[in-house]
Parts: sequence; structure tokens; C-alpha cells
Amino acid sequence: MTTAPSSFVKGLEGIVAAQTEMSHIDGTAGILEYVGISIGDLSKHSTFEETVFLLWNKRLPNSSELGSFTSDLRANYALPEGFVERISSLPTSAEPMHMLRTMVSALAMYDDNPNDNSVEAARAKALKILGCAPAIVAAFDRHRRGLAPVEPDTSLSFSANFLYMLNGEKPTDAMTRAFDICMITHADHGLNNSTFTARVVISTLSDLYSAMTAAIGSLRGPLHGGANEGVMKMLNQIPTIDDAEAYVMGMIERKERIMGFGHRVYKAKDPRAAELMTLAKQLADDTGNSDLYEKSHKIEQVMEREYAAKGIYPNVDFYSATTYHCIGLKLDLFTPMFALSRIAGWSGHVIEQLADNRLFRPKAEYVGDHDVPYTPINDR
Amino acid sequence: MTTAPSSFVKGLEGIVAAQTEMSHIDGTAGILEYVGISIGDLSKHSTFEETVFLLWNKRLPNSSELGSFTSDLRANYALPEGFVERISSLPTSAEPMHMLRTMVSALAMYDDNPNDNSVEAARAKALKILGCAPAIVAAFDRHRRGLAPVEPDTSLSFSANFLYMLNGEKPTDAMTRAFDICMITHADHGLNNSTFTARVVISTLSDLYSAMTAAIGSLRGPLHGGANEGVMKMLNQIPTIDDAEAYVMGMIERKERIMGFGHRVYKAKDPRAAELMTLAKQLADDTGNSDLYEKSHKIEQVMEREYAAKGIYPNVDFYSATTYHCIGLKLDLFTPMFALSRIAGWSGHVIEQLADNRLFRPKAEYVGDHDVPYTPINDR
Repeated sequence: MTTAPSSFVKGLEGIVAAQTEMSHIDGTAGILEYVGISIGDLSKHSTFEETVFLLWNKRLPNSSELGSFTSDLRANYALPEGFVERISSLPTSAEPMHMLRTMVSALAMYDDNPNDNSVEAARAKALKILGCAPAIVAAFDRHRRGLAPVEPDTSLSFSANFLYMLNGEKPTDAMTRAFDICMITHADHGLNNSTFTARVVISTLSDLYSAMTAAIGSLRGPLHGGANEGVMKMLNQIPTIDDAEAYVMGMIERKERIMGFGHRVYKAKDPRAAELMTLAKQLADDTGNSDLYEKSHKIEQVMEREYAAKGIYPNVDFYSATTYHCIGLKLDLFTPMFALSRIAGWSGHVIEQLADNRLFRPKAEYVGDHDVPYTPINDR
Repeated sequence: MTTAPSSFVKGLEGIVAAQTEMSHIDGTAGILEYVGISIGDLSKHSTFEETVFLLWNKRLPNSSELGSFTSDLRANYALPEGFVERISSLPTSAEPMHMLRTMVSALAMYDDNPNDNSVEAARAKALKILGCAPAIVAAFDRHRRGLAPVEPDTSLSFSANFLYMLNGEKPTDAMTRAFDICMITHADHGLNNSTFTARVVISTLSDLYSAMTAAIGSLRGPLHGGANEGVMKMLNQIPTIDDAEAYVMGMIERKERIMGFGHRVYKAKDPRAAELMTLAKQLADDTGNSDLYEKSHKIEQVMEREYAAKGIYPNVDFYSATTYHCIGLKLDLFTPMFALSRIAGWSGHVIEQLADNRLFRPKAEYVGDHDVPYTPINDR
């Protein structure tokens, strides 16, 4: 190697490994922007479809462009022929993230030209994966509940169609909007582990299916997308709002980690959490889950009282847990929801990587012995 | 962020991203060692099973340990119930790497506790994936040839059993040994892209299946494991040995990349190529493919004459192509063979990462605009 040796950077912390025009995070100020537009504005005014267009094209669409993009996405709602049957023959005990990773991987085998990495082809594949992923999750969840799959309805938005395929009935506008805001707020977030994984994999000029599959595998880890399940488990362990303070104080005393607080990036309040808090309260009231919201809010108050000086605030996982519960999602579908949304970000990063690619190949520092002789087995 | 900003390192070149006790590469001297033992010694004296034990335990086994390890591996040769049927219903047009990635991912759904990341559990899962992967590849290849799957034979070594399941008849000792040396020489190679991918994914504390699936997706890229297919395609385009020199000189004149030469790491002759060259010649003679070997050798001579001063030598892909062809493997099984072997390395790196984990989360440099207003759609 001609490069001068450098010292080991554990976790690559502080290393800049990619350039992006998609999302910008200012952790100190608590800012998240997609292509320069604040996540607050997008949550208030945009839709998931428009947000995906923004991330992939680095600008908002006009009316005609949004119409075409939406049509193209809807044309990908239906799974390939025979694919639902493959899902319906899976073990019902499977964790949905293992299932989703496997079935997104399997989509490659139903693509006539899965390895075409031209920007045009990569966009088409990204639309296919984004379009099909909701049907995969919904079909599997219905399979394990003993219910027949529901065909997609191409008159519905991404979010409405998913909730329709999952529950077999059309969601209310409030549900759809709430879910859509979850999709918007989770779509991209800098070079998190799964996004980095997608860029590392595509840098071998592999293919979009390989990159998405790898990213789903990363996301399911407890140190990444798996965290919002932990929040819900904690909320379930607190019988009533009156027990919330004592429960949290007990965890603090035992020095246990309280799920849904703090983030390696944000030292101020996670800007995605602010949007979700408002949403969670409204949904909780609408769906008879006010107690759950009140428990969450109480935990936030206790944590703020105890830790605000240290900069520990609720992160995006904290209120997305309440939101998904109110929408009626089972606990183990929380991380798959994160994946449905983040496919947008992963795909956009893959397209950016392909446009200016360099194989990721860092070095390992070998810390073992050298020149060890091969000892014949009878002498060992 | 408290870390001082650093500049963008494209491809993370020169950055040390992990420590390992498994393999050591000295590209300038052309040295590859596993746990300090030269790849030459291991190719001459070891077996794939012993090499996997070495990589996972950082020492050679004694006779009794090797016996137990081999038994444990063989106990994992058989696929889970119903799994062969899933393979036999896949589209026969599927590229085997997409198939392998999908079916290794699917194995997680047949594991009672797929997410257990204790070192003991990770080793057991690694043995399961390593044990099952040959049956997955063999069953799919027979399916697309219209042949019934062959049950594994637990009296056979890893390599012999794979060739038996693939062809339905027991391989000769020479074939088995040749294949076994390919498995030994491809088992680990520092922090290549797929190995890095596996470490990045497991760092979220995801699971071994997610890490292996991601690594397979990386390996299939043309800039990584896909290269040995390119070598074979080139050899197939050269009618006879008398055409080899003109063909190569033509490529050099047109400034086309000659597959199988040069490596980002090695500036001297790839030490794995040296072992494989001897092997390829013998196998070619044994199997009536002497012409193929002679064509390869001629290309190497031309390249050496033209480029030796620049340090361009044949890499591991160059002679593994001839070797796999002589063993009777179809072109699109070359990269899956690389995967079968490298599962050993990937698993070992995952176990190392779990033992001293830190989430990989490098930074992206945002190079777009800020403070962009959300323009209503009718004003765009």
C-alpha cells in the first residue's frame, strides 16, 4: 500500500465516508432537512410520494411530475406472479424483518435484468422495491393471522394502500395522514448504519436488491431500527400513568438504559420527535389510547427534569412507538415500518453512490502473530 | 458532534476500520497468512475444515478437536424440512448469487432463536450456514437442470459432499483436493468489501443471517467476487492458444481492462494465484482441458512481458476460473463457490466484531442547499 498507515478508528466515528445532497442533520441545533427543506415543513405540507420525489430528484415536483411519479409507484404495488404464494408458505413464526429481508432479496429473481445499474434502471428498481414492500409486509402479517391476502388498490396513496392491504378495510383520513407523516419523517437520516451499508454494498457494482437486502438486515439490529420496539415494551410494562414516574426513577437508579432517549447524533431534541409528539397525542385521543400517550408524556417530563442539563431528549423512536400502536400495528411490525419508509433514503443514496462510485475497501489492522509454522496434527 | 470534522475519504482508502487476528496481507511482499500461517503451507498441508477451525479459534486443532468440529459441521449438512421444496419452486432463470443470498436469508426463519448473538450461538449459526450453503447451491443447480436434489452424505468432507450433491456421483480424490484448496485459499482476505459489510451490519447487533446475507450481496458485484466470471468469459472468447497473444495485445491497445490481473491490495504476485496455478495445470491435464490452461499461461506470459515493471500480476481470480471450469462448474457458479468459502471468513469477522463491538456510523458531508422554503405545488 502506498497510503500512509493511520490509526484504528473504532466505528469510523468522525470519518466522512460519503457526500450527499439528500439530508442534512445539525445535531446541536436539532435540525433535520431533506434537500434543504426542514422536516417540520415537510411533515406539515408534504406527502410521502412527494418526499420520495424530492429525495431522488433533489427538488420538489410540479403537479404533472408528481402525478407521473405517483402513477409509476402505483404500477408497482402488485407483487410478481406466484410471489404471494411464496409468502403464504413461510413459517408463521418468522420475525417480519427476517421475512422482509428475504422477500426483498427474492424480488431480484423475478426481475428480467436485476443487475442493471444505470441510473434509469436503478430508479425503476427502487420504485419496484418501494412499491412492492408494503404488499410483502401486509401479505405476511395476514398469513400469520390466518387471513387471505388483500390485493393492492391503485387508487390509494402509498400509506392508505398499505393500511388497506394490512387490515382489509380502508383507513380513516386521520390514520392515513398519521402513517404518512411517519413515512416522511423516517425516509432519510444522513449516513446511519443501514444507509452506509447500502452504499458499501452497491460500491462493488452489485445491484439494488443486494443493497436493499443488506440495509434491511442492518436496520433490524437493536442499536439501529430495532429501538422503537424497546420503547413499546417499556410502555407495556408500566400499568398506569400513576406508575410511570416510579418506574422511570427505578430504572435511573439501577442505571438501566431508558429506550427512546438520546441519540448518537442529536444533542438537542430530535426534530423528528417534535412532529411525532403532536401526532401521537391526537391519534391516541382518536383511538381510545389516551392513557398510553399520557404515560409517554410523563416519562418525557421525568427524563427532562432529571437529564435536560445533560442533553438527553426523546428521539424519533419514542413517539413513533405510541403512533404505530394507535394505528393498530403489532410490535414486531414497528421496525418493518421503518424499513418501508427508509427504502426511499437507501435507494437515493445508492443512486448517489453509483453516480460517483469508488469501491469501499478500508483496511484492517492485523494484531496477531506472524510466521507461525504449520505443525503436523500429531504434534499439536 | 464533538469530534473535529475530517475531510471526505473516498472509498475509505487507507482508513483502518477494524482489528483482526485472522488474516494478514502484505501486498508488497505478496504474503497472505491466516493466523500467522502462510497460505502456501495451508494449501499444501491443511483441509478446509481445519482452516475454518483455525480462523475461528486462532489456532490449529488437535486431532480430537478437529474430529468434533468436523462432526458438528456435518450435522449441519441437511437443509431444514421443507427448504428444498422452496428452492425447487424458484424461477430457474435466477442468477445463483441472487438465489443464494435469498435462501441464506431465509434460513433465519427456520432458526428457533435467530437473533442470539452470544459467541457460542454465533458459532453455532455460522456452522449451520456454512453447513447448509453447499446444499442450497447444489439443489438449485440441479433444479434448473431438471434433476432431483441429492441428499447430503455426512461421511464426506465439506468439499467432497458439495461435489457429490451437485453431480450425483462421488468426486475423484484429485477433484476434491483441488476444490478443497480453492476453499482454503478463498476463506479470508482482510477487510475486503464483503467482510467489511458483514462487520458493519453486525455492529447494529442485528444477527448472523443478516450479516451473511449482506456479504453475499456485496460479493456478487463485478468489482469484488464477480471478477472470476469475467476471466472465464475472456478465455472463452479466445479460440486457440495461437490466438491468445494477439487477443491480449488487442485489448491492451484498446486500453481495455484485462480481467484477472492486478489487485488494489497486491503490488506483487497474489500469493493465492501461485498455489492455484500449479493446481489448475494438473487439473486441466487430468480433465482434458490442457488447452485452457495453456491459453491462461500464455496470457500471463504476455502480461508479464508488457507490464511486469508496473507490478501487474495475475490475481486469485485468474487461475480459479480455469480450476472451476475443469471441475465442471458452470460459469455462474464461480462466484457462489467464492461465497461458500468466504462464509468462513465473514463469520469469523462477525465473531471478532461482536467480541468488541462499536456501532459503525461514519458521517456524510452534506453538499446541498440549506433553508430551502417549501413552495406550494401550484407555485412550482
